[in-house]
Amino acid sequence: MMNLSSKRRIGVIGGSRTGEEFLKLAREVGRLIARHGAILVCGGLGGVMEEAARGAKEAGGMTIGILPGSRTAEANAYIDVPIATGLGYSRNSLVAMNADVLIAVDGEYGTLSEIAFGKIYGKPVIGLGTWDVKGVVEAKSPRRAVKLAIDAAKGDAKL
Amino acid sequence: MMNLSSKRRIGVIGGSRTGEEFLKLAREVGRLIARHGAILVCGGLGGVMEEAARGAKEAGGMTIGILPGSRTAEANAYIDVPIATGLGYSRNSLVAMNADVLIAVDGEYGTLSEIAFGKIYGKPVIGLGTWDVKGVVEAKSPRRAVKLAIDAAKGDAKL
Amino acid sequence: MMNLSSKRRIGVIGGSRTGEEFLKLAREVGRLIARHGAILVCGGLGGVMEEAARGAKEAGGMTIGILPGSRTAEANAYIDVPIATGLGYSRNSLVAMNADVLIAVDGEYGTLSEIAFGKIYGKPVIGLGTWDVKGVVEAKSPRRAVKLAIDAAKGDAKL
Amino acid sequence: MMNLSSKRRIGVIGGSRTGEEFLKLAREVGRLIARHGAILVCGGLGGVMEEAARGAKEAGGMTIGILPGSRTAEANAYIDVPIATGLGYSRNSLVAMNADVLIAVDGEYGTLSEIAFGKIYGKPVIGLGTWDVKGVVEAKSPRRAVKLAIDAAKGDAKL
Repeated sequence: MMNLSSKRRIGVIGGSRTGEEFLKLAREVGRLIARHGAILVCGGLGGVMEEAARGAKEAGGMTIGILPGSRTAEANAYIDVPIATGLGYSRNSLVAMNADVLIAVDGEYGTLSEIAFGKIYGKPVIGLGTWDVKGVVEAKSPRRAVKLAIDAAKGDAKL
Repeated sequence: MMNLSSKRRIGVIGGSRTGEEFLKLAREVGRLIARHGAILVCGGLGGVMEEAARGAKEAGGMTIGILPGSRTAEANAYIDVPIATGLGYSRNSLVAMNADVLIAVDGEYGTLSEIAFGKIYGKPVIGLGTWDVKGVVEAKSPRRAVKLAIDAAKGDAKL
Repeated sequence: MMNLSSKRRIGVIGGSRTGEEFLKLAREVGRLIARHGAILVCGGLGGVMEEAARGAKEAGGMTIGILPGSRTAEANAYIDVPIATGLGYSRNSLVAMNADVLIAVDGEYGTLSEIAFGKIYGKPVIGLGTWDVKGVVEAKSPRRAVKLAIDAAKGDAKL
Repeated sequence: MMNLSSKRRIGVIGGSRTGEEFLKLAREVGRLIARHGAILVCGGLGGVMEEAARGAKEAGGMTIGILPGSRTAEANAYIDVPIATGLGYSRNSLVAMNADVLIAVDGEYGTLSEIAFGKIYGKPVIGLGTWDVKGVVEAKSPRRAVKLAIDAAKGDAKL
């Protein structure tokens, strides 16, 4: 666990309810994040958040879940470090704040708020079938999304 | 001040930096909100927030400003009830939470986050030259925007 | 409603469950705050918060309730300006932040957290049968407590 | 990093400014927490927070720092998982929320707010020269404090 705090953090945002296809994408995104040696940050609940965390754990990675409720027990089974906030939806701001780069997979208004906070905090935002708003760089595949994210987190690319 | 708590609340969201045209729109929106007897809620700072509050005060209305910082003194000069939060940008969630309906005037990512929270909390969102995202009902004029907002706040119309 | 924002704000903190005697004290405190022309700030719920707000309204004052939940409807019947926060107990910090001076009536751990935040934010804290901790100035009566609070809010006295 | 989320979490609270003696106690508390296999949670800044985290790292433990600001870079050098909140002092609530048990070392009003939140959230609070308030179990040594904390976290003892 040496130098955990110096590892890059990639946030994966997306809804708790989404289609099978997006869940697969999220899991693959999680796997690739872990393979690149980055930490996965997410909202800690179900759907995209759970599949991304599951993928990251399958690939031996580490996961942080920033939860809306006041109990760490509400985290999904693949979260290593659950952080309870008790802030409700306002915790979306903290998810964006704690990642170097965000990857948005599908997503409803919660995801839109996280995209907006990502941009407020100056974080690059990469999309996989998510909101088509200014400042989101759409990627064609999980592989491409994570490549972009890692490069941006390292400062090798400016998104 | 009888029954202050039963008055409708219209939130006006928009950036602290915007063009002259949008500032005029914001002021007119504020005036019309006050004339309809509703309370104006905003983020309490400059630009769209300030002009909307200024308009509301010109028309004898009441204004609430939900501030990012920890001091009520940071509110603009037209805020009757400044609320300090110390939450930084996470206070955007509280602006949306404390309005029955939102009117977005222009706006950058902060406004986008408030639109998103508005929809998360089930609040109708009306736009005047703002983000073109699903769920925002674009209005052609301040008059139309406030008419839509008041009707929606009363439950006379479903947006 | 002229110059609402320049009025002094006195926060009344205390538990939702307390004895009859403390409820009476809270109501009297609220009345006196209003008679001195100050605005009452509280947590917006029941018990001490409700009785203080009730007293303030009986004396023609104005009341602000900073609520833990995300709906203004949870405010007690005597709150003019309910502010929903969705922050749960973390909203205790905002109650202290939005008052110039605090008066604590009885109270459990929620009140203790508000006393602590009051001192963190440099606000004088006056007590009526509350926690006996450093920095709380115990008063013998509502009259004395409000006198001390008003003087401190005006800067006439340093507590 | 297996089963990280099932490990006990002990929060160490205390001020950023304190005497040399308390800094030593904090470091020893951190060491013992790590030796018992628990994760250390703290506010992530200097003083007691830093020495406790330093002790935990010296003993091979893991540390979480829940920060007031919006940048993880403000964490002290011994924090493995910095969590930025941007909540200012309101983050004190989250420190208490994310620990199973709290150990308070010395401390000013920030610590008092964390003690209060600990009790609000039903967490046992153990003290080392801290605030003498109801519900804080004073311990005579770091060894005793951590023993009490671990037992309480396991549910073996009720504080």
